[in-house]
Amino acid sequence: MLPNVLEVARRLIRERIAEGETVVDATMGNGNDTLFLAQLVGAGGRVIAYDIQPEAVEKTSARLEREGVREWVELRLASHEEIGKIEEPVGAIMFNLGYLPGGDKTVTTTAESTIRAIQAGLARLRPEGIMTIMVYWGHPAGVKEKDAVEALCESLDQSQVLVLKYQYVNQQNQAPFLLAIERR
Amino acid sequence: MLPNVLEVARRLIRERIAEGETVVDATMGNGNDTLFLAQLVGAGGRVIAYDIQPEAVEKTSARLEREGVREWVELRLASHEEIGKIEEPVGAIMFNLGYLPGGDKTVTTTAESTIRAIQAGLARLRPEGIMTIMVYWGHPAGVKEKDAVEALCESLDQSQVLVLKYQYVNQQNQAPFLLAIERR
Repeated sequence: MLPNVLEVARRLIRERIAEGETVVDATMGNGNDTLFLAQLVGAGGRVIAYDIQPEAVEKTSARLEREGVREWVELRLASHEEIGKIEEPVGAIMFNLGYLPGGDKTVTTTAESTIRAIQAGLARLRPEGIMTIMVYWGHPAGVKEKDAVEALCESLDQSQVLVLKYQYVNQQNQAPFLLAIERR
Repeated sequence: MLPNVLEVARRLIRERIAEGETVVDATMGNGNDTLFLAQLVGAGGRVIAYDIQPEAVEKTSARLEREGVREWVELRLASHEEIGKIEEPVGAIMFNLGYLPGGDKTVTTTAESTIRAIQAGLARLRPEGIMTIMVYWGHPAGVKEKDAVEALCESLDQSQVLVLKYQYVNQQNQAPFLLAIERR
């Protein structure tokens, strides 16, 4: 069976990231991707994860503790626009656009801050590094955000990055799709 | 590096097709995909390939002879709409939409016949079989054909098939993209 979009995102990252690397979860949420990244880079690696909701940071922290990977993860209660402050090149950056599942549906990523965060992230991505953006756009601000992110992606210089759009096109209910940006 | 769209199409087919299967090249052209499919299914398999241009059939026949795989390939000088006449279920069907590279650029696939051929092909695809459609749309009739094929794909029942669109979105020059239809 063709894999779902989340599986594809993780496979793209797994193929490119070695133990010991520095990687970023731009949208911590329930910590699913944070945990995935922490296990991938291992104790010698470094994960930096962002969320503006204290609830997300608390839940993720507890979860990482339970899984024994908390030590090499930095959880930041801050906007993902702060990715630009990271001092070193990073190998992978994961975005999940939308709202925190099970949380307050009125708190979503927005077009403006997402665009700034993606641009800041691209500036930190090492050569052959990858950014994955899962676009969940079935919420009120989702269409505007989706359109802005797609427009940005389409405008990126093909001599600098390759942008893949991976989408199942015969789905109902505004199914999520994947954008993956690979630095050359 | 992220693979190009043709490599993705071939990987999807390779993952699903075993030696001895029956498969189809809907758009023979220079025989690139015909040769790929013939090598994949082997002497116990069956490849049926279509083209309406005698030049395509002649060149492909000679090429398959040279490669030692001619025996289990049926080259048909006919429209790919005739896929519907195949008597048995098939595991894979490949389409390349556009014109014959190096040939007469005014002879292209067209929206109407392509749609009929895709529909005929879907009806012959076995469960878990796959159809790959490479959409080269940088020719005069290409935009109309692309729009028609995408509309058809988006309308397919998600309980019957899964339709993947795999596209690099920051490319110049109307770069080709891939549609892959997997039967459930």
